Amino acid sequence: MATQLAPSLLVAPDPGAPGLTAPVEARDETGAPVPLRVVEERPLTIYLNAREIVTAMTVGDHPEWLALGFLANQRMLRPEDAVTGVDFDAELGVVVVRTARETDHEAKLARATRTSGCAVGTVFGDMMEGMAGLRLPPLEVRTSDLMALSQAINRTPSLYLEAGAIHGTCLCRGAEPLAYFEDVGRHNAVDKLAGWMRVTGTVPDDKVMYTTGRLTSEMVIKCAAMGIPALVSRSGFTAWGVRVAQEVGLTVIGRLKGRRFLCVAGEERLVRDHAP
Amino acid sequence: MATQLAPSLLVAPDPGAPGLTAPVEARDETGAPVPLRVVEERPLTIYLNAREIVTAMTVGDHPEWLALGFLANQRMLRPEDAVTGVDFDAELGVVVVRTARETDHEAKLARATRTSGCAVGTVFGDMMEGMAGLRLPPLEVRTSDLMALSQAINRTPSLYLEAGAIHGTCLCRGAEPLAYFEDVGRHNAVDKLAGWMRVTGTVPDDKVMYTTGRLTSEMVIKCAAMGIPALVSRSGFTAWGVRVAQEVGLTVIGRLKGRRFLCVAGEERLVRDHAP
Repeated sequence: MATQLAPSLLVAPDPGAPGLTAPVEARDETGAPVPLRVVEERPLTIYLNAREIVTAMTVGDHPEWLALGFLANQRMLRPEDAVTGVDFDAELGVVVVRTARETDHEAKLARATRTSGCAVGTVFGDMMEGMAGLRLPPLEVRTSDLMALSQAINRTPSLYLEAGAIHGTCLCRGAEPLAYFEDVGRHNAVDKLAGWMRVTGTVPDDKVMYTTGRLTSEMVIKCAAMGIPALVSRSGFTAWGVRVAQEVGLTVIGRLKGRRFLCVAGEERLVRDHAP
Repeated sequence: MATQLAPSLLVAPDPGAPGLTAPVEARDETGAPVPLRVVEERPLTIYLNAREIVTAMTVGDHPEWLALGFLANQRMLRPEDAVTGVDFDAELGVVVVRTARETDHEAKLARATRTSGCAVGTVFGDMMEGMAGLRLPPLEVRTSDLMALSQAINRTPSLYLEAGAIHGTCLCRGAEPLAYFEDVGRHNAVDKLAGWMRVTGTVPDDKVMYTTGRLTSEMVIKCAAMGIPALVSRSGFTAWGVRVAQEVGLTVIGRLKGRRFLCVAGEERLVRDHAP
């Protein structure tokens, strides 16, 4: 077998990058010291023009894409809004997204409905609004590709393999992983991907989004809002996520492990071509 | 071996309760239909008096405790605030916490700094403020108790065992699990526990909090704010969480599996009495 992993990756995790992990003094059950590296977690405050929007707890890489993707997924930044600049100040932990004209985010903020818990930090109502009438393009999903993707992603060097306690999201086409992001918040990883897709003009219609996290309503809604027609996870489902997926025509596969998985939406678009 | 599990539990998961799980039509990798139950996820909007505070995505049980605990952990509701009522309207998905006098939450909300991602939905700055000068009571933690707790909790009937894709938090004393909460958001499970402790007047000084989730900064801060001197998880750590724990004297144990674990804070308070 070739040892080169996922040569197709345009963006890959950089587990050795300074500032993403820190050494911690740990002792195991016997009292023996264990060398341990853990992921960093730092606040990043996102501004849209002069307005402070949110403070995200993030591992710290790709702050510009995180900010752009967060605002886009929240529908505070629309496709037609011209972004004139994205300025990151590492010392202050601030990123400012500037647009040519004012956006309508003030009105949205006034509603002040934010979600809480693990599925959090977002204006949920605004996100749901974006689902009304949405119908994703039909995409055939080959089961052989899913299994190849799972293997390739699991073997790619990552903060997860280095330090654990982090979630990953990877944009894929066919059997190829294309762009792989990680973050302490699984939604941040998805937002980074959304920001990258916006900046690079990546077309979503023929893509699959793989995530390590659970397929809650918010993950399903973000994937659909990004226009990606298939969502794959090694983890499980929530009922609301399944319902939204069925409504918008999103293919949803979870509990993908080795050659096993469960499909809860869009099963008619699966092409079962994997070796038994 | 006795089959009665954790007879000490004052609050236990009720995986068969109506409305907490839903059936989903799933197919596996062979195309065969698989009977599947998944956890529900529904919005719950929390009001403090006349003010809308947050909408949490929750599995739906214990809305009153979730609201009380969320507000307490956010320091919007102080120990000295007299709660005059907690009203839950299931149809609207609204819970209203009423206090004898106005709280100072309006000023807090004006700061409008909320966190995002998986560690989200909270006014992070306010939570950090509560850490200044905090010093938790020293508590000896027996490693034999940790291993007994892990076994007892893993074997307790739960939504996790029934449907997966949910987090659990259990308050314990010694080798006894006392109150076990679950939610789609791991922070919601902790908030439910905080609400229950407030209502029952449970003293935190001699307790251990067990959680299935990662020990991010927010989990560490909530545990410390609740006055609980030891935090245990089967999952891993983030660097900020470890730093906060060391500052406030919180004992932190992670990656607890079988007889193995890693201790990253308060190791001097461990009593290693487990069988090798």
